[in-house]
Amino acid sequence: MAGSPRRATSRRLQLPLLCLLFQGATTILFAIFVRYNHETDAALWHWGNHSNANNEFYFRYPSFQDVHAMVFMGFGFLMVFLQRYGFSSVGFTFLLAAFALQWSTLVQGFLHSFYGGHIHVGIESMINADFCAGAVLISFGAILGKTGPPQLLLMTLLEVALFGINEFVLLNLLGVRDAGGSMTIHTFGAYFGLSLSRVLYRPQLEKSKHRQSSIYHSDLFAMIGTIFLWIFWPSFNSAPTSLGDTQHRTALNTYYSLTASTLSTFALSALVSGDGRLDMVHIQNAALAGGVVVGTSGEMMLTPFGAVAAGFLAGTVSTLGYKFLTPILESKFKIQDTCGIHNLHGMPGVLGALLGVLVAGLSTHDAYGDGLESVFPLIAKGQRSATSQAIHQLFGLFVTLVLATVGGSLGGLLLKLPFLDAPPDSQCYEDRIYWEVPGEYENEVQGPLSVEEPDTRA
Amino acid sequence: MAGSPRRATSRRLQLPLLCLLFQGATTILFAIFVRYNHETDAALWHWGNHSNANNEFYFRYPSFQDVHAMVFMGFGFLMVFLQRYGFSSVGFTFLLAAFALQWSTLVQGFLHSFYGGHIHVGIESMINADFCAGAVLISFGAILGKTGPPQLLLMTLLEVALFGINEFVLLNLLGVRDAGGSMTIHTFGAYFGLSLSRVLYRPQLEKSKHRQSSIYHSDLFAMIGTIFLWIFWPSFNSAPTSLGDTQHRTALNTYYSLTASTLSTFALSALVSGDGRLDMVHIQNAALAGGVVVGTSGEMMLTPFGAVAAGFLAGTVSTLGYKFLTPILESKFKIQDTCGIHNLHGMPGVLGALLGVLVAGLSTHDAYGDGLESVFPLIAKGQRSATSQAIHQLFGLFVTLVLATVGGSLGGLLLKLPFLDAPPDSQCYEDRIYWEVPGEYENEVQGPLSVEEPDTRA
Amino acid sequence: MAGSPRRATSRRLQLPLLCLLFQGATTILFAIFVRYNHETDAALWHWGNHSNANNEFYFRYPSFQDVHAMVFMGFGFLMVFLQRYGFSSVGFTFLLAAFALQWSTLVQGFLHSFYGGHIHVGIESMINADFCAGAVLISFGAILGKTGPPQLLLMTLLEVALFGINEFVLLNLLGVRDAGGSMTIHTFGAYFGLSLSRVLYRPQLEKSKHRQSSIYHSDLFAMIGTIFLWIFWPSFNSAPTSLGDTQHRTALNTYYSLTASTLSTFALSALVSGDGRLDMVHIQNAALAGGVVVGTSGEMMLTPFGAVAAGFLAGTVSTLGYKFLTPILESKFKIQDTCGIHNLHGMPGVLGALLGVLVAGLSTHDAYGDGLESVFPLIAKGQRSATSQAIHQLFGLFVTLVLATVGGSLGGLLLKLPFLDAPPDSQCYEDRIYWEVPGEYENEVQGPLSVEEPDTRA
Repeated sequence: MAGSPRRATSRRLQLPLLCLLFQGATTILFAIFVRYNHETDAALWHWGNHSNANNEFYFRYPSFQDVHAMVFMGFGFLMVFLQRYGFSSVGFTFLLAAFALQWSTLVQGFLHSFYGGHIHVGIESMINADFCAGAVLISFGAILGKTGPPQLLLMTLLEVALFGINEFVLLNLLGVRDAGGSMTIHTFGAYFGLSLSRVLYRPQLEKSKHRQSSIYHSDLFAMIGTIFLWIFWPSFNSAPTSLGDTQHRTALNTYYSLTASTLSTFALSALVSGDGRLDMVHIQNAALAGGVVVGTSGEMMLTPFGAVAAGFLAGTVSTLGYKFLTPILESKFKIQDTCGIHNLHGMPGVLGALLGVLVAGLSTHDAYGDGLESVFPLIAKGQRSATSQAIHQLFGLFVTLVLATVGGSLGGLLLKLPFLDAPPDSQCYEDRIYWEVPGEYENEVQGPLSVEEPDTRA
Repeated sequence: MAGSPRRATSRRLQLPLLCLLFQGATTILFAIFVRYNHETDAALWHWGNHSNANNEFYFRYPSFQDVHAMVFMGFGFLMVFLQRYGFSSVGFTFLLAAFALQWSTLVQGFLHSFYGGHIHVGIESMINADFCAGAVLISFGAILGKTGPPQLLLMTLLEVALFGINEFVLLNLLGVRDAGGSMTIHTFGAYFGLSLSRVLYRPQLEKSKHRQSSIYHSDLFAMIGTIFLWIFWPSFNSAPTSLGDTQHRTALNTYYSLTASTLSTFALSALVSGDGRLDMVHIQNAALAGGVVVGTSGEMMLTPFGAVAAGFLAGTVSTLGYKFLTPILESKFKIQDTCGIHNLHGMPGVLGALLGVLVAGLSTHDAYGDGLESVFPLIAKGQRSATSQAIHQLFGLFVTLVLATVGGSLGGLLLKLPFLDAPPDSQCYEDRIYWEVPGEYENEVQGPLSVEEPDTRA
Repeated sequence: MAGSPRRATSRRLQLPLLCLLFQGATTILFAIFVRYNHETDAALWHWGNHSNANNEFYFRYPSFQDVHAMVFMGFGFLMVFLQRYGFSSVGFTFLLAAFALQWSTLVQGFLHSFYGGHIHVGIESMINADFCAGAVLISFGAILGKTGPPQLLLMTLLEVALFGINEFVLLNLLGVRDAGGSMTIHTFGAYFGLSLSRVLYRPQLEKSKHRQSSIYHSDLFAMIGTIFLWIFWPSFNSAPTSLGDTQHRTALNTYYSLTASTLSTFALSALVSGDGRLDMVHIQNAALAGGVVVGTSGEMMLTPFGAVAAGFLAGTVSTLGYKFLTPILESKFKIQDTCGIHNLHGMPGVLGALLGVLVAGLSTHDAYGDGLESVFPLIAKGQRSATSQAIHQLFGLFVTLVLATVGGSLGGLLLKLPFLDAPPDSQCYEDRIYWEVPGEYENEVQGPLSVEEPDTRA
């Protein structure tokens, strides 16, 4: 933003040029590498002697659609709570997720479904790509309002690649179980975003403080996002599991956990406020922690009691985090976390990973019967004990934290490149610098918008 | 609210303490009683020789998700129409439904799936718990804006228990058919809520009248609720039916009935207004009556014509109710029905029960063939004639009306307990007494909010 | 509106009387003609020796629900962008679609599932009726804000009939493939609506220009519509295809195409604005063009690359259309296209038809294997070559354009009938003439509303 109008104008070209460049590159890579798999290819499917009813589509597509709704409606509208950043919240969610779907189809395809020189795609690649987009949007939540779309696209480019590598290490190399992504999605996305936000720390951010709050209607829009995430979370955690009892059990556990995190969030929100009034920030976010916390253990024999207890704990920790930890993160650790992703995804994600360690360590042949094969194939085959599985789960959490923190820090350095378009400190959380905003809105704003205001970051 | 600030503060602890108490109690009961059923337990499922494709999950989970969306998005946003009560409408819906899901899992579990000393849970208990939450939210609609969250939690505690008992009497003892709940959900929820509202009658409610209306955007938010309920109602009525043709036919009948209630609502709304203009209250609510009215008969051989005719009648009756009956209910019967649940759930529910009497009485082996077993098992087994089934259906309606009315009256007395936190007459339909409301909103309100204003009910 | 208050009042009766007349007529026709089919009729289903799991319901109902959500939530809220026409946008969508579902059940039923003197209905007739409602709502987008509900109901009456005929000619007589309706839905709906708008051209429309724009919150509501359409479009295109690989592949292709149209829309929107800022109109609409453009070819062996490339092209063309073509359409061709349906449905629909010509012409036994039967049955049976199929596809586009243009022009003449209630030029895009609008809104409007203002069209 600094300097001449001409330079400002040239920076305005960064977004369209990056979009065209990225879309051009993925288009070429799709042409070279991406092919239908045996369930989406007409010849391959009919060559096998399948009943149409057995096509994986019918077992996973309804769950996929719920996940898709969570990513675009849920995350998008959850972030609309800011009074002047609704267009950007839902619009950039739309852009980043759309790019992430393509790019992670390629990255995850190379790592998981590459054979015969090609990536093979079907419903499972759609679900996995949406999961990766979810991690990107979690990170987006930490830096919401403080980054321009070119920065966000670069973050997505990097994060999708690292997400794929982390997931590959955990699931394929370490044999870690993490169907609903307590580690691979929530912990990774949260600590990637927090590290990135640390590097992008803005000491002068209070210049935009008056815009960093909600208004009545923006909070109602955000509740649409919350409810979408809440109702469809059982589909999220169960979308990629083994079929049959496992998918069924995962949905059930998630459903119970979320009811408990909702009650504990309401209780804690009223308790920690001075006057017993509820805080919309808590309800919108912490009530969802029950979905995060059973991301790893949801497919296991957690028991309905375990699900309820875990949800209760997660809602409690998350609400306390919003009240007491977020201010400390900013003042002591210089981490400005716009949406409080540390409370919704970070801590509940780590808790979920640890719960997975516990439940995996307690698994027995007795409890799972022949279903052990579906949940812990390495234990079922005798290649690993329950204790060994638990240790691997714990190591998976460690790997995730390291990769996320290092990756996010690198991402922060990348996004600090001086030629990248970024909002000045006084224009954070403001739609008008990226969007043509309708007239009525302009009238409400006091004083003229100075697009050319110097960027204090420089 | 009356009395000293100290007493007011201690009342503020009612909500968090009730949440913690209820959550603690359900957690313990879950630990003792709730277990996975044979479709969600790893060992049990694999012990049986099942194909994963036959797990009930694949036949009912998509319908469950639609019902789940109706309960949390549909009911929640439908009630956002009040100008200053949006946080409470969607927030308390969230809280009450989350608690109802846990608590009705226990109540319905004891009554329907208790064996070997344990409650066994799976997708059907999830659907049934959501149905029970729906009944609670219907009752909530009658007292919306006039009750505090501790009162609402106590109402939920009582209503869930009585809902379970009524449902058990109808379905298990009387052999009544009521898949979509014209009686068990709509009639029960409506008359429970209306009786409760009668007991809680506030003669001074006009003190809050200026807040008991909508604004432009709150009506648009409410339309989100309406459309969610409307589009997913076919899933609601068909979610618990027998599989195959029955589930298919129920969805189809509900779909047709709703189209007809929509047209009759538009027609009547324009006719009864003085100047031909449409009233959003009618469109938001009465257009849904077509879903309620086929709740009992939707699974039967109602015929497409029957569905359309029933929907037309329901939309008509419901719109006329909003126009002419609601004012009389308040002035003559001292029933203040905030959302007009008598028009949307009460009368259409009773009509739906009577339609079920008629269609059951007309059922023949000829019309149902071997499908009679799925819809009227007692007739199919020769234990009951069609006429006898019809009489049982009618008796089920009677039982429901009695239990709902008595239960709701008891509920009203319970909620009148003087130490319970309740809004004063001048602060009804007001978010600020329960929520930290963002600044902009405060500025709009004339005059200071007097939280300590005496409660005229005392 | 012209003339005496008495005449105005009598015009106000047009909406309710038309609703009652149409509902009465369809109710009678349902009674005479509509019957359950072999999958929804209890006796017929159980007479056959079917497993319940094979009922078509389980393969198509989840997709149907997504389509249903698109029609009522997606189209309804997409059109809420106008600042003073939200009630009408979502309300008339509700009314027109509800009527279209009934009426097209009859029209399509006579043409596609009439035997033994009856129309037979099930999940496929539900999907087809929703598709037809989609076409009606596309046309509605062209004349949004400039027509009264009686006019809109008459338009629906005509368009549903012509839609059914066009679809019958293409699919049944010409053997054209068009699962997702690039031709039958998008091209037909767009050119029908544009022709109609041409006949209804209002030279004095600038009198309402101040209302023909969005405000901040109305744009956020519209984004709900956009996201609903975007996420569920894979279900839309795949809902009526053959089961198995074909349905799976169609969903996958649509998913990829939409990601690419989103990126190209963001790129072009920023490029064509003077200052690099994004335009909500483009994001809300053009990003969806990727769904339209693969409506015909999505079920074919388009390849993932083909899907991405098509989506990229469609987003580009659509955004450029909003920027450069829409103003010309109004100034040179006297076509006032409120929602820009030419850009979202017209051009991408034609492109999609042409893409279908190309991909059909390139189809080989090698590429499809035994799956050729599912996609191109006439080629598989040897009754037609790939080139011949391509020519038939092209002819289908021609037929659609002719029928839509002629039909829309006739529709325009019908809607110009002088006794029909229509808003005057100065009261277009205004809810208050059809709805009782809550008080707050009234206060915002300068000056009194003159309902009796002369209609300059007369």
